[in-house]
Amino acid sequence: MAKILVTGSKGVIGSCLVKMLRDKGHSVFGIDLEHGFGEIGFEHEMTKTDFTYARCDVSEFRQLERIFEKAGPFDFVYHTAAEFGRWNGEDYYEQVWKSNAIGTKNVIRLQERYRFKLIHFSSSEVYGDYEDVMSEDVMDRVEVKQMNDYAMSKWVNEMQIRNSIIQHETESVIVRMFNTYGPGEWYHPYRSVNAKFCYHALHNLPVTVYKGHYRTSTYLEDTCRTLSNIVDNFQSGRVYNIGGLEYHDIEKLVNIIWDYTGADKSLINYKDTEILTTKSKKVDISKAIKDLGHKLTVSLEDGVKRTIDWMKDYYGI
Amino acid sequence: MAKILVTGSKGVIGSCLVKMLRDKGHSVFGIDLEHGFGEIGFEHEMTKTDFTYARCDVSEFRQLERIFEKAGPFDFVYHTAAEFGRWNGEDYYEQVWKSNAIGTKNVIRLQERYRFKLIHFSSSEVYGDYEDVMSEDVMDRVEVKQMNDYAMSKWVNEMQIRNSIIQHETESVIVRMFNTYGPGEWYHPYRSVNAKFCYHALHNLPVTVYKGHYRTSTYLEDTCRTLSNIVDNFQSGRVYNIGGLEYHDIEKLVNIIWDYTGADKSLINYKDTEILTTKSKKVDISKAIKDLGHKLTVSLEDGVKRTIDWMKDYYGI
Repeated sequence: MAKILVTGSKGVIGSCLVKMLRDKGHSVFGIDLEHGFGEIGFEHEMTKTDFTYARCDVSEFRQLERIFEKAGPFDFVYHTAAEFGRWNGEDYYEQVWKSNAIGTKNVIRLQERYRFKLIHFSSSEVYGDYEDVMSEDVMDRVEVKQMNDYAMSKWVNEMQIRNSIIQHETESVIVRMFNTYGPGEWYHPYRSVNAKFCYHALHNLPVTVYKGHYRTSTYLEDTCRTLSNIVDNFQSGRVYNIGGLEYHDIEKLVNIIWDYTGADKSLINYKDTEILTTKSKKVDISKAIKDLGHKLTVSLEDGVKRTIDWMKDYYGI
Repeated sequence: MAKILVTGSKGVIGSCLVKMLRDKGHSVFGIDLEHGFGEIGFEHEMTKTDFTYARCDVSEFRQLERIFEKAGPFDFVYHTAAEFGRWNGEDYYEQVWKSNAIGTKNVIRLQERYRFKLIHFSSSEVYGDYEDVMSEDVMDRVEVKQMNDYAMSKWVNEMQIRNSIIQHETESVIVRMFNTYGPGEWYHPYRSVNAKFCYHALHNLPVTVYKGHYRTSTYLEDTCRTLSNIVDNFQSGRVYNIGGLEYHDIEKLVNIIWDYTGADKSLINYKDTEILTTKSKKVDISKAIKDLGHKLTVSLEDGVKRTIDWMKDYYGI
């Protein structure tokens, strides 16, 4: 069984992934921005326990370096820690560039020293406004303009990793995440459209639906199962789309949510296309199916209903 | 005459540009990282003078914002402030991402508020390993992989500006600088190959020459004259290569320097190609010639000799 570090272990994907990796018998250590249970104290022992966690801002090299000294060595690092979301990136670009560009470079510098295998979390946003099916090699064939700072930072990360593979012979796999959602995704306004709409429906808050925007949605557990399989078939240099198969517009999503919750339809405002946003994301996930056993076991309708049930419970509605 | 802000006004290009703009009768205010003559005090008046300068780190929004409140409004902003150089970017990537990505986004956010015309300084590095003639539209036709964090940060800047033009109707011109050198370029190890080799020859320090690397070199005064012309023919959305016409290999450069200084030839080490570096940079400068009156008045041989003469004087050799 492998010794694994998960950065961003308290995030939606990170926390689900940690659980799955532990269920498979791996030894998993997590780091994230906040204090938490099982946490190492550095200058002073703060608690007696089996340490499985440390507070760490990946953009601060000193904090990241001491994780490897104190809790390492690791066979694999799942680097999920990142500032997330396109509008978050426009509103909080300082954090985006520090956590994503500097933070990932810090991870790479330590990879060059400690030689762990890196699984880096990228985003479908790197495909920019590409209009055809998004297969992993699009950016080797077509010039893509990233449409927001978040997307740029994720594409920068992919190039940083690529250059380190060339120059320092590091071993890395990149996963590009497509609209992951499901139970466990707590609410804030910069969340996935799925989580946001479920929460708004449950709280009688208005939503804006941009017409003619198409997405696939990937159920969180399906995503994390696939991610946890990477350690069993790690092929350095590979890039994988982790997405769904059901291609749907946002109107279908909102209809499922409003039907299931019985929310007031007057809360829905329809608008035409949003500026600088990818209108349609068709994804090719055949590589993840072949190499990583990627399986989609939950339909959009079931997944959304389960998310709503979980949210009702989580928020005591 | 225009009111102009120059960020990075104490840099090699910035300081030359400030002088030329003032000679043309413009009112120029400079900002840079260090304290200096003519400097505004904010909380307390530190000196009595005509204020022409303030200390400001462009990556700190508060410091940048108050420049516009205290010394603005400006018709034009020449944004030369940046961390510079590919190996500097690998060794000091924290500064690169803060100054270049966050700093330029700060400039853009203030541009969206104050509506000044922006002249942004990019780099030939954005062309990556493109092997044919570098004309400004290459990145609209071909997928280019940036080969280092510095190059990525400059390409990020270009996309940030492009997105702001689309979303906020800001007005910006981008200049891509090609290997500028000349009197005024003081030494450090991350400088242009021209300055570095001159300094090393004068101080009997060894140099490494990578064979088969071709560049054009642009004399600093020629560069700055062209840059100062932009305010007279500002066309938003334009991108200009600012480069030279003489296409030469690094061996020719080193021969001119060693002949003129009489330095010991055993200081020169020849090596094969350097990793992740553009081997050949052929540049198309016809747009800058047409729109900006770009003129190359000093040959490589004369320019290098003048640089060496200036360096001897500057360093008291």
